[in-house]
Amino acid sequence: MLDHNLPTEAQLSAAIDSAKCRVDVDDVYFVACGGSYALMLPAEYVMDRQSKTMAAHALNAAEFKARAPARLGKSSIVILCSLSGTTPETVEAARFARERGALTIVLTTVAGSPLDEVAEISIYYKHDPKRLETNDAPALLARLTFGILAAREGNEVVAKLDAALNQLPGIVDKAVAAHEGRIATFAEDHKRDTVIYTMASGGNYATAYSYAICIFQEMQWIHSAAIHAGEYFHGPFEITDFDVPFIVLKSLGASRPMDDRAIDFVTKYSNRVTVLDAEELGLGALATDIVEYVEPLVFGALLRVYCDKLAFSRGHPLTVRRYMWQMEY
Amino acid sequence: MLDHNLPTEAQLSAAIDSAKCRVDVDDVYFVACGGSYALMLPAEYVMDRQSKTMAAHALNAAEFKARAPARLGKSSIVILCSLSGTTPETVEAARFARERGALTIVLTTVAGSPLDEVAEISIYYKHDPKRLETNDAPALLARLTFGILAAREGNEVVAKLDAALNQLPGIVDKAVAAHEGRIATFAEDHKRDTVIYTMASGGNYATAYSYAICIFQEMQWIHSAAIHAGEYFHGPFEITDFDVPFIVLKSLGASRPMDDRAIDFVTKYSNRVTVLDAEELGLGALATDIVEYVEPLVFGALLRVYCDKLAFSRGHPLTVRRYMWQMEY
Repeated sequence: MLDHNLPTEAQLSAAIDSAKCRVDVDDVYFVACGGSYALMLPAEYVMDRQSKTMAAHALNAAEFKARAPARLGKSSIVILCSLSGTTPETVEAARFARERGALTIVLTTVAGSPLDEVAEISIYYKHDPKRLETNDAPALLARLTFGILAAREGNEVVAKLDAALNQLPGIVDKAVAAHEGRIATFAEDHKRDTVIYTMASGGNYATAYSYAICIFQEMQWIHSAAIHAGEYFHGPFEITDFDVPFIVLKSLGASRPMDDRAIDFVTKYSNRVTVLDAEELGLGALATDIVEYVEPLVFGALLRVYCDKLAFSRGHPLTVRRYMWQMEY
Repeated sequence: MLDHNLPTEAQLSAAIDSAKCRVDVDDVYFVACGGSYALMLPAEYVMDRQSKTMAAHALNAAEFKARAPARLGKSSIVILCSLSGTTPETVEAARFARERGALTIVLTTVAGSPLDEVAEISIYYKHDPKRLETNDAPALLARLTFGILAAREGNEVVAKLDAALNQLPGIVDKAVAAHEGRIATFAEDHKRDTVIYTMASGGNYATAYSYAICIFQEMQWIHSAAIHAGEYFHGPFEITDFDVPFIVLKSLGASRPMDDRAIDFVTKYSNRVTVLDAEELGLGALATDIVEYVEPLVFGALLRVYCDKLAFSRGHPLTVRRYMWQMEY
């Protein structure tokens, strides 16, 4: 828990300073549940790609506590996220990590929440799924991860990150405007579907996963699975048929050839593929060594508009739940 | 590549010796595609639970090469698997890892295959999805992983592992016999289904994933997704309804409470849940500190019999493919 009145920038700096002051950091665990867990996957991707001294591990919070990694201890940083700060598994994971001596850093919107109380350092974020503010969780996680890399390893990408993040709202606005017709067509074309697959790789797999579990399964009661584009040819591609819908994200980063190969195949054998290409969305304007780390945010914001429209066409608002908020479980 | 004439036990020993002789090992990467990638997840689980000196990472082979982890190098062991030894992404990943200076150990059935040629050490396995021999890939991966842990860290679980592995064929035979009626009912009850979900956690998530992508999507053209039991309550559970089929694996290990919670919920709101419980299958007879590491093998072998029967009831043999073996892609 940190002084609640510090501005977000000061909280972020305090978190990075704490990470810098640790004598050894061998592992960074990114721990959360559901949509917040999905936010952790791009951070793990950043660490895997960039860090020479820290090993990264993204884990569901209940899995993290049950797995109880043998390496978890004083040389670990554990970064956790929960919008409400009340997710019991995430609170338990933070408590467990702190007992083991790890540095715990949490992101939440609610000061004074159980997660806030149990953690060493908190960063409070503002949440609006349709905006890409630099004080929302996805951007803060990227800034925190690169900030730790800069502080501990002298990684120099941070300057490019901030510049890139500042350009994202404009890129999303343009993309939404350019896709207006496609969004309307998508919603009408898919309103009777009982299954919609998502597919991506690299850091964008996170967005595919988030839309599969939080939007299609949870908020639309449409069957779904996030297919990793590299795994597609080793099983899932046999489910492809002319009428099976896919949403595929195409990176401008290291995983673009993997995405390309999957897109070439899926568009040949299904007539119902929606491809969102980072290049076509204008992300090519960003520095080539930073673009893959911010793409998941843009894909997420744009897909939200697609799914808002789909929800309207289906007469099934994204806010409807049959179990969550309706009962104890 | 290793002398092709060495018996499997000598190959395994040679692999473990090579791992022991490395000066530093900071990371172990488990790299493969599809069903072979699924085999890697329990090995990552073992390492996460047991290793104090080595960080573990399971990655799809194309993802591994694109991600190009910054830490990959002389202090890395990269373990790869491909049944035929010809999976191009896995061969490329092995080449890439070796160029980076990592120790490469491969499992394959084909001596002289491209994967065999490119790797430093090979272990040849025998494959029969219905048997659980100690010279098949899942058992060899467990033995290799624990063998490396024993050689480098003095881990003492290996003796229990071999004893447990030797008991598995008998446990599977008994389970198949005891489930005969349930298997027949499952096949008839699910033969018209267009979606079947699988769910598990811990090391068993691997089996859930394998059945979702290799059996249901690939071999039966049934929509599917592997749901992590810890993630279930954070999105996927809203897809649950009285007629939505789930197969859920229940561990005897650290993740049992997570599985229990998911099973309590899913069986309340769906009438079509097949629970396979490690305890009911007789796995409780094994040492408590080893059982969770061998469960995925037993669940895999038993589920194979369920799916053979399902395939028969559907008139859709597990060997049918519309893309694989039919074309270049």
